Amino acid sequence: MNFSRYLIPTLKENPSDAEVVSHQLMLRAGLIRKLAGGIYTWLPMGLRVLRKVEAIVRQEMNAAGAQELLMPGVQPAELWRESGRWDFYGRELLRFVDRHDNEYCLAPTHEEVITDLARREIQSYRDMPLNLYQIQTKFRDEIRPRFGVMRAREFLMKDAYSFDASEDAAAQSYQIMRQAYMRIFDRLGLRYGVVEADSGSIGGSFSHEFMVLADTGEDAIVSCPACGYSANLEKAPVRLADAPAAAPKAELQEVATPAAHTALQVAKFLKTKPKSIAKTMIYIADGKAVAAMVRGDREVNEVKLKNILGADVLELAGPSAIVEVTGGPVGFSGPVGLTIPVYADAELAQIPWLVVGANKADAHYTGFNLGRDAAGATIADLRNLAAGDPCPSCGAPPTLARGIEVGHIFRLGTKYSKALGATYLDVDGQAKTIVMGCYGIGVSRIVAAAIEQGNDEAGIVFPLAIAPVSVAVLPMRAEGPAMEAAQRLHDELWALGVDCLLDDRDIRPGVKFKDSDLLGVPLRVVVGPKGLETGEVELKKRTAPQPEMIPMAQAATIIAKLVVDGGGQSL
Amino acid sequence: MNFSRYLIPTLKENPSDAEVVSHQLMLRAGLIRKLAGGIYTWLPMGLRVLRKVEAIVRQEMNAAGAQELLMPGVQPAELWRESGRWDFYGRELLRFVDRHDNEYCLAPTHEEVITDLARREIQSYRDMPLNLYQIQTKFRDEIRPRFGVMRAREFLMKDAYSFDASEDAAAQSYQIMRQAYMRIFDRLGLRYGVVEADSGSIGGSFSHEFMVLADTGEDAIVSCPACGYSANLEKAPVRLADAPAAAPKAELQEVATPAAHTALQVAKFLKTKPKSIAKTMIYIADGKAVAAMVRGDREVNEVKLKNILGADVLELAGPSAIVEVTGGPVGFSGPVGLTIPVYADAELAQIPWLVVGANKADAHYTGFNLGRDAAGATIADLRNLAAGDPCPSCGAPPTLARGIEVGHIFRLGTKYSKALGATYLDVDGQAKTIVMGCYGIGVSRIVAAAIEQGNDEAGIVFPLAIAPVSVAVLPMRAEGPAMEAAQRLHDELWALGVDCLLDDRDIRPGVKFKDSDLLGVPLRVVVGPKGLETGEVELKKRTAPQPEMIPMAQAATIIAKLVVDGGGQSL
Repeated sequence: MNFSRYLIPTLKENPSDAEVVSHQLMLRAGLIRKLAGGIYTWLPMGLRVLRKVEAIVRQEMNAAGAQELLMPGVQPAELWRESGRWDFYGRELLRFVDRHDNEYCLAPTHEEVITDLARREIQSYRDMPLNLYQIQTKFRDEIRPRFGVMRAREFLMKDAYSFDASEDAAAQSYQIMRQAYMRIFDRLGLRYGVVEADSGSIGGSFSHEFMVLADTGEDAIVSCPACGYSANLEKAPVRLADAPAAAPKAELQEVATPAAHTALQVAKFLKTKPKSIAKTMIYIADGKAVAAMVRGDREVNEVKLKNILGADVLELAGPSAIVEVTGGPVGFSGPVGLTIPVYADAELAQIPWLVVGANKADAHYTGFNLGRDAAGATIADLRNLAAGDPCPSCGAPPTLARGIEVGHIFRLGTKYSKALGATYLDVDGQAKTIVMGCYGIGVSRIVAAAIEQGNDEAGIVFPLAIAPVSVAVLPMRAEGPAMEAAQRLHDELWALGVDCLLDDRDIRPGVKFKDSDLLGVPLRVVVGPKGLETGEVELKKRTAPQPEMIPMAQAATIIAKLVVDGGGQSL
Repeated sequence: MNFSRYLIPTLKENPSDAEVVSHQLMLRAGLIRKLAGGIYTWLPMGLRVLRKVEAIVRQEMNAAGAQELLMPGVQPAELWRESGRWDFYGRELLRFVDRHDNEYCLAPTHEEVITDLARREIQSYRDMPLNLYQIQTKFRDEIRPRFGVMRAREFLMKDAYSFDASEDAAAQSYQIMRQAYMRIFDRLGLRYGVVEADSGSIGGSFSHEFMVLADTGEDAIVSCPACGYSANLEKAPVRLADAPAAAPKAELQEVATPAAHTALQVAKFLKTKPKSIAKTMIYIADGKAVAAMVRGDREVNEVKLKNILGADVLELAGPSAIVEVTGGPVGFSGPVGLTIPVYADAELAQIPWLVVGANKADAHYTGFNLGRDAAGATIADLRNLAAGDPCPSCGAPPTLARGIEVGHIFRLGTKYSKALGATYLDVDGQAKTIVMGCYGIGVSRIVAAAIEQGNDEAGIVFPLAIAPVSVAVLPMRAEGPAMEAAQRLHDELWALGVDCLLDDRDIRPGVKFKDSDLLGVPLRVVVGPKGLETGEVELKKRTAPQPEMIPMAQAATIIAKLVVDGGGQSL
């Protein structure tokens, strides 16, 4: 592979529209180019990375006994109506009509299609266990696509679906996938965690996420060093000390709080602390307004709230809806006198008095007691676990970290098989409902996540397993003995099965060094005039501080051994 | 690979909705299943075939110096507006709006996106020649999808695009692709032809199609055994003997032709021959009506007519449009008195008198002479070449055959680069327009075409190179010594790199034989009780009349050698 012949359009400057480091570096290294919001072209070097990820995923899925198939991206509305998701999936489901005015969508996921296949082709308990997967393009019409391929609209996903005759067998299929996923992420050379997770719009009873650990990750992870518990913050329950509801300690009293909209402003104005305020947030859940209360220094966990409500769509109410529902403007909502359902975080019940909004401009109540003043409120775990809270499993102090979700495995139970009538004949001749699981890996997102985890000021630090090439050979001059020796080494490496890029461009060596580092190539070999005299070349691992000289005659075998021994790790 | 564990849902009966043999056999062999009109799921065995085709295409494209990338399927309307095809592509271009009401389409082809990339990334003549390709899902909203994956709406295509600094260099890029395509189709093990073709909606000056030869093919091919000329019938010009226009021989005279709508009916009624009739067809070309005349026993070649008109959309006029334009009903149109443009096939000028419609019900004119009675008509080559016509190149009698288009290569010139302003700086520092070519292969269609070419009453006859597996090993019993020996042979074959399916199902041997033949597996090995005694297994090539006995001890090496030596051919 000669650099001069390849389309590798590296950029010196950071593109102005890229917010996160992986997006910046993927553009700068010439791995991707944007076509439209959330829609990218993978250039040759980027595609090499993507294909390496894909190959590892495919090998491990096959090794785990899953069978690859390929389902369509364009799917008829009828199937989505059968599952009920045509109405409930929301606007991320891109819908359209064809020339005959039939309704279709661009598939964001394939439970409907695979369950339709299963109900036609699975006849008997003998046809299971069955695990079918594909590596295929998905489309989700994200309201705000961002971070390059990290949260794109069109993206590449591996999605697998298991079919079993019983919950026990399904649990086994789930474990097989969990193990396969760990082998996949091990081989990819990524640091990752496996965490309990919410099942979201896919549904089912039980799920785990695979998180690539990176400080820049969108997700927060709760981990307990004492007991090994690990969960997405969305999912982690808050365990409160068992304590009775606090008795009132003061009268409810309206006070003026001019222009104090936020908990912080109210606390400051009333000379108290945010933890003595109760925030009341108005949400619209499946079209109906509800109120959710948490302490002023806490955040509502919308996933918990959504699950408690059993809602399909949950969003914060806009200003006019708030006025309509509470009678007061944004920033002054409170539970007193509300006619909509009120949900209060459990810790509020243990506080004798709180400040709450009075549902009119520039006014709050002091002395609020949940049991006395909002007796109809539903008390529940509504907030994010925070520093100081105990581990939900063992009670020890957990740690918080950040991660990027790259895999998600679900026990689906019979959610889809029941909706679509996917049954099998059991050993006793009885028709029973198939038990399903589904298992996703964000193939294109893994590329971005690997870069969020592996980068430095010079560029990308790819794990060896997924680098666009394992080795870059840099002749100091594009012609003459250095170029000839470099060409020989390049050819020897390919003959040994090591993928290698020869930077044959007639440019300053400094630019070659920079591009090799920017692309994240794990091993760089410089063939220069000095080495030619001594019969040596300069070998540098991407993250090593210094290069080393190795004999030119053995260079190819030394490097090939490094690549084999390196496994998936960054060098 | 154990048959019992795989999803291979073979069917005994021909599905009623499959018209052509490849569609029937792909359903029966469990290679595909229909999701919606023209939209199919590839099941595991079908996907294995598809992937083998894909791998050969990829290897030869890479060997020819092309670079793989991956472009999006969802594309913004703006780019298609820039090229002008948003308006002209017609309803095969599936359009929709996203949640923000921006217009997009599902890509039927990628000239716009690749040219957009080229204008951004190609700076200088030094960046060329460049050939970029992808293997990617396309969508064309066919008005009548049919024949399974042969004319599907969602399908897999390899599309390549070349960029050059001059027409000469572009001609060279075109030749490189032509050679690569021949290697691809050779390796696939298909009988095929390379024919001159019309460039259709892709455009450009010059193109060749690669046709898999099959009696059931949709396309007709004109080939000349004398000079080697070969063209799609759509494209083949008709070479008439040089003759002056015929002088009139009779007066124009209206005659009653009650209920005689077709040329045949009119000829019969008037006791003459269809070749003495001139059919007048009314078309709507880009919204405007035109008339096209050919001899009563000929067919209008709509591709030729479209090209002569320079039209983007050409369709036959409906009954009400015919009445409006001609004053008469369907079946009685004629050129006399028409105010719309009239195009007449050249051979009509050499006929002294003809019968034509009179533009009123149940009436025709006899004695019509083109030069005298339709002096304003444009004379052109408008019809299909037919038996008896000379080879357009050398004049010898050509032959007609049928084929399935599986590849199409185009010299695009500057059609897209000019529209999108894709330029480069030449050696003299001048900005010049990039010269392009594009090169398609219908990857999924190849699977169907291979089956149209290779099948018999027992099922598919796949070429070795693309069979779902090379070998099927059939133990006569699913347990005991036969099963053990079969398992050993299966494992040995995989260890030698031969893909092999072990039919471990506990069913009648006859069903195993049938499924192996139906799937088109090139080599079948039967391990039975008799062979176990003599230390032999029965080997049968798919198309051989009889099996042969081979020693069990050497079976794996004998079979592996057959697979290697067999190359791509059917066995």
